[in-house]
Amino acid sequence: MKLSELLNRTSEWLKSTGPNADIVISTRIRLARNLDKVPFTNWANKKQKEQILVQVKEAVDKSVLLKEAEFFKMAELSELDRQFLIERHLMSPEHTYEPEHKALVVEPREIISIMVNEEDHIRMQTVQSGFNLRDAWSLIDKLDTELNQALNYAYSVKLGYLTACPTNVGTGMRASLMLHLPALVLTKQINKVFHALAKLGIAVRGLYGEGTEAIGNFFQISNQVTLGRPEEDIIGNFERIMNQVITREAQARRFLIMKDRDELKDKILRAYGTLKNARIITSNETINLMSNIRFGVHMDLLPDISIKTVNEIFIMTQPAHLQKLENKMLTADQRDMKRADLIREKLK
Amino acid sequence: MKLSELLNRTSEWLKSTGPNADIVISTRIRLARNLDKVPFTNWANKKQKEQILVQVKEAVDKSVLLKEAEFFKMAELSELDRQFLIERHLMSPEHTYEPEHKALVVEPREIISIMVNEEDHIRMQTVQSGFNLRDAWSLIDKLDTELNQALNYAYSVKLGYLTACPTNVGTGMRASLMLHLPALVLTKQINKVFHALAKLGIAVRGLYGEGTEAIGNFFQISNQVTLGRPEEDIIGNFERIMNQVITREAQARRFLIMKDRDELKDKILRAYGTLKNARIITSNETINLMSNIRFGVHMDLLPDISIKTVNEIFIMTQPAHLQKLENKMLTADQRDMKRADLIREKLK
Repeated sequence: MKLSELLNRTSEWLKSTGPNADIVISTRIRLARNLDKVPFTNWANKKQKEQILVQVKEAVDKSVLLKEAEFFKMAELSELDRQFLIERHLMSPEHTYEPEHKALVVEPREIISIMVNEEDHIRMQTVQSGFNLRDAWSLIDKLDTELNQALNYAYSVKLGYLTACPTNVGTGMRASLMLHLPALVLTKQINKVFHALAKLGIAVRGLYGEGTEAIGNFFQISNQVTLGRPEEDIIGNFERIMNQVITREAQARRFLIMKDRDELKDKILRAYGTLKNARIITSNETINLMSNIRFGVHMDLLPDISIKTVNEIFIMTQPAHLQKLENKMLTADQRDMKRADLIREKLK
Repeated sequence: MKLSELLNRTSEWLKSTGPNADIVISTRIRLARNLDKVPFTNWANKKQKEQILVQVKEAVDKSVLLKEAEFFKMAELSELDRQFLIERHLMSPEHTYEPEHKALVVEPREIISIMVNEEDHIRMQTVQSGFNLRDAWSLIDKLDTELNQALNYAYSVKLGYLTACPTNVGTGMRASLMLHLPALVLTKQINKVFHALAKLGIAVRGLYGEGTEAIGNFFQISNQVTLGRPEEDIIGNFERIMNQVITREAQARRFLIMKDRDELKDKILRAYGTLKNARIITSNETINLMSNIRFGVHMDLLPDISIKTVNEIFIMTQPAHLQKLENKMLTADQRDMKRADLIREKLK
């Protein structure tokens, strides 16, 4: 598989085929693992880091789940390709810093990816469409077991899996959902909801993870607790709480369509009109307007647009994607024009 | 002629057939006249005001220019009809206060209208399409002569025509242009231009005259001097200055299309996209967006839209026009929806 093959393909998790896909874009679970008796990445020397790479590569090669996966050495990827992989949510922005001895494993449907030598030696993740914590857990647990057959993990009987950052010690697991909550935002309930989540040890972030702003009413919500309880318990608890958030968003949507149908339609169709006619458009404005379109499609207010088109626009209009499509570097101004062209083409 | 006949007809001055109609919407000249030896309207008693009405009506009936004109008594018109006449720029908002003994004479093509018993006994105006001070002057002068044959005007050899407000004494004439100056606004030259005009004794106002805000880059610009010089001199001077403003706007348009074509196109097409899709839209937003459309049509950026459609939308989306079209009173919220419907229909 070449990286460019991903370009014209929709990631499995973006197909909106999973449960509650109108509200939950995707479910992600990641596990942090480190090799036993080897310093954590940021303390390891070059030789040790290279050794980690080699060992993980061997384990990946033996994995059945990863038999079609590609192993990309970060240092061999262009800056554009790295950005491209971040935009596809296959790796973190941090994984591009000091790229030597770093690698990314990507399975062609993009359901599984593994960062090697990020903060931890191994960060494996699975992303699924919709609200699907059980399947995600079952898959990542299977992958973890496979890799564990070839690798010795740093593990303490008392603490569980050892990780570079103490907040991950224990299960090394983080489960997170990407949610689209336009109705909770419009009905001004969102802060109350987030406040309640914070009290329950659940973190809310923007579209691109830690420290990023929430735009387009998209939120990444994840469990913070990793210690002292088995994974199934943590996931079960997170699932129950998230079910309540989803129910509230669904209620707010019903309320809006009943009470403010005209205002809602106006808002959504204006976004549509702008996207269909703009000649210059930034990434952020696109996300904000497309958020309205996504909402409109799920509220049956835009019958002619498919959710597939919506998802394609979301992914394809990102800076690195645009440049890979054009097969050349573009300035921000050039991207803003190409982005507008692409959106008009897709909405035709 | 019934008032409702005007509804589906485009006023002559809105046809954009006159000189420089891309920049000058219309040319208006009005003359203030008062009957000799009768107190000004606001000092006259009921009997005197009624007598003024009768005398002016007789003069109108004798006029050749007004042979098809209608004589509307203000008190007999509904509030909605009065608003309708203001929206068509046939009379001032002030002409609706204390409607008894007030009247409006309207000639079917709306080139001439006369307010009776506004601030002055007679305020006659002509409105022409485009930049056309000469024709406007020639017509209003002819009308003035006709009426003068039946009426004795208050006139002082030393001062000229006597008027209720001293600022109108002399010629009693005000010439004004309705200009569309989007390029001077976009290139931030407008304040400099207006500052220069102020020094030359030329006043700038918004779309609906004195005290109204400038919206949609439309400006009413008029001469302030009425005393001490013959009408032709005043008009000639005003014409020369206005020619410079028009030239500057034309230059700014060429500059913008050369330098910022993409940005301009983006701005104009976004306005188009919003108008074509909105479900709820206020009067002010309509004027602002239609200003962009008008600009776009004249810059050849919107080849599928005619200036006739643009003008129709401007006129028809006004509150009283919408209500007359629907043949019933509408709340502001209802108007905002009807307005959006009408715009979408016209832009189809």
